[in-house]
Amino acid sequence: MARSPQKSLTYAGSGVDIDKKDAFTESLDSMLRRTHTDRVIPNPGGFAGLFRLDYRARLFARNYKDPVLVACCDGVGTKVKLAADLKVFDTVGIDLVAMNVNDLIVQGAEPLFFLDYIATPVVDTAFLNDLVRGIADGCRRSGCALLGGETANMPDIYAKGDFDLAGFCVGVVELARVQKPTRVRVGDVVLGLASDGIHSNGYTLVRNVVKQAGLDLGKVYPEFDVASGQPNGKATGSNKKPRTRKKAPGTPRTLGEVLLTPTRLYADPIVRLQRGYPVKNIISGMAHITGSGLAGNLCRALPPTLDALVDTKSWPRPAVFSFLQAHGNIPEPEMWRVFNMGIGYCLIVRPSSAQSVAERLTKLGETVYQIGRITKGTGQVNLE
Amino acid sequence: MARSPQKSLTYAGSGVDIDKKDAFTESLDSMLRRTHTDRVIPNPGGFAGLFRLDYRARLFARNYKDPVLVACCDGVGTKVKLAADLKVFDTVGIDLVAMNVNDLIVQGAEPLFFLDYIATPVVDTAFLNDLVRGIADGCRRSGCALLGGETANMPDIYAKGDFDLAGFCVGVVELARVQKPTRVRVGDVVLGLASDGIHSNGYTLVRNVVKQAGLDLGKVYPEFDVASGQPNGKATGSNKKPRTRKKAPGTPRTLGEVLLTPTRLYADPIVRLQRGYPVKNIISGMAHITGSGLAGNLCRALPPTLDALVDTKSWPRPAVFSFLQAHGNIPEPEMWRVFNMGIGYCLIVRPSSAQSVAERLTKLGETVYQIGRITKGTGQVNLE
Repeated sequence: MARSPQKSLTYAGSGVDIDKKDAFTESLDSMLRRTHTDRVIPNPGGFAGLFRLDYRARLFARNYKDPVLVACCDGVGTKVKLAADLKVFDTVGIDLVAMNVNDLIVQGAEPLFFLDYIATPVVDTAFLNDLVRGIADGCRRSGCALLGGETANMPDIYAKGDFDLAGFCVGVVELARVQKPTRVRVGDVVLGLASDGIHSNGYTLVRNVVKQAGLDLGKVYPEFDVASGQPNGKATGSNKKPRTRKKAPGTPRTLGEVLLTPTRLYADPIVRLQRGYPVKNIISGMAHITGSGLAGNLCRALPPTLDALVDTKSWPRPAVFSFLQAHGNIPEPEMWRVFNMGIGYCLIVRPSSAQSVAERLTKLGETVYQIGRITKGTGQVNLE
Repeated sequence: MARSPQKSLTYAGSGVDIDKKDAFTESLDSMLRRTHTDRVIPNPGGFAGLFRLDYRARLFARNYKDPVLVACCDGVGTKVKLAADLKVFDTVGIDLVAMNVNDLIVQGAEPLFFLDYIATPVVDTAFLNDLVRGIADGCRRSGCALLGGETANMPDIYAKGDFDLAGFCVGVVELARVQKPTRVRVGDVVLGLASDGIHSNGYTLVRNVVKQAGLDLGKVYPEFDVASGQPNGKATGSNKKPRTRKKAPGTPRTLGEVLLTPTRLYADPIVRLQRGYPVKNIISGMAHITGSGLAGNLCRALPPTLDALVDTKSWPRPAVFSFLQAHGNIPEPEMWRVFNMGIGYCLIVRPSSAQSVAERLTKLGETVYQIGRITKGTGQVNLE
């Protein structure tokens, strides 16, 4: 039975405020511009972002004979829910960039530009400013332009306080340098770069542990090594720039702060490493350790005839993983399947190059472990 | 007070099933491949998609001296909620592509590739297959490759049956052909291309009207012109390929089916139109009519010294808009601010070219109306 509503319906009355959204869109511009080089063509009010390839100029003329565009898309999973619960939004902005650029550089690519999709129930300018500031920060640190994005207000999909994020990154790689599993050989060395904790995978399980074990996100737990200012233990490495909340080193961090530590951005060191070897392709293969863990991701760099044998005792397990495992009574294999366990990014290199690559990456601020070797096999990663 | 859960926690037990997700990811491959040309480099198991620029080959050597990459990001708003309610998912896949490629082509660009982000509470293979089939279909019809995507399972963010979508599209345009408001002149003609109904904006209001007025999504309402097989009235035009449910022409469509009609894809006719004028840039400006309506989007194509005068009686108003306005008691200005009102895409052309452009677009399957003129002004669109 059809009935007409008593009052007339408008868009704002249905929960969407176009004026407020337009005002915010303008305020975003300055944050985006801070990430732009002169390759971004200003396009105010435009329907899409414009990025010059500099086809005849510096980038292409010198570095690219047969450029391949590389593109990927990722979100940060239910880490957004934790951010929403704790009302801290800049760090997941960095996570969003990291989840994408870390995938992109696996192909040997350098990042060019990034776009974001933010879905929220309402326009909350403070929230969006924090979030986009984090995204812009991650883009600047990764050498890519934040070219644009979309902010969607969907009060019927997202509960009050909830939101979701998706990111999209485009880079470029010379065809001959595209990473290929066939480049990997028996005897190659697997180098692991320390993660900054959990990064952005497994948060549905993390939050379930917090809930089931009755953990307090606002509490400082003694399990974390706070004295060093490295909440996740020694394996978090020589992080030159603090990536999160501006606390002095050694300040105790709450469980919530530890769990919101942003995903480490590997683009800058990996791109610099490759530029250091302009002729020789120094890297046999790479992997970003995300959902499915070390074994599930490193195997993506292997040909079907080789295995990687990884010594899981070759780096220290960050405290946050042991803490979650104990409180969640999580089986050891499940831990390795869901979490990065302290290694956020892997490189496979010839044994003769291993030390040189490790030293360069250490100088670039990474904590590097030799974690394994390539053997004959069937494309598996064996954790020992 | 911390307590350990009685049973051990696993990722699957927390609502995320990695095995099931991996199986689906493999089944997606064939749908993606149907959209690929030889410019897409196969990269099974890769962390990112690879797209050859063909720098020295056909595309670039012949058509591009100074290529500019164009990128945009968009979702389909709360139309996903309607799709979820009606359990029809392929059409919003087309919407997702259309919302992006229609923005992209406004810059004069041709689409190259597309990526999607799908967020759901659980892995539902049938749902995902329908959705991605729609996305792949939209990509093929727009001449772009579906290069990859991300499927996120987030049971804590999305309620059972809910989901969200974001799309990202990259295209290329020759620098000299990038659309610029300064190209528009007094006396230029505004051509409007008929929409296929509501497209993908204003669905929070649409669904509010349905709810407040107690409308039945499963009912065939007499207001819609079903005899012609064009549920939204005459303005939906000579759509060569049926875009939605496979019903014979003239079959009555329910309100739900009318509201889920996918957004019209303008990429193919607009790209073909421009290729028909390889030397002369025939188009002064373009606009994709999305949220904020005709005035709010067409003004983005104008310089600050010119207005567009649009005669709102110059095309028939599709029945779906009158229907919603009546049932929602929506003020006329609000209708124009939220909905496309029958015009989904605009072109601004010199008066001497208007007839030729309109004829070509008509041959390419579009329904074209001359809806306005450019006058001196202040960058406004005046609806009369």
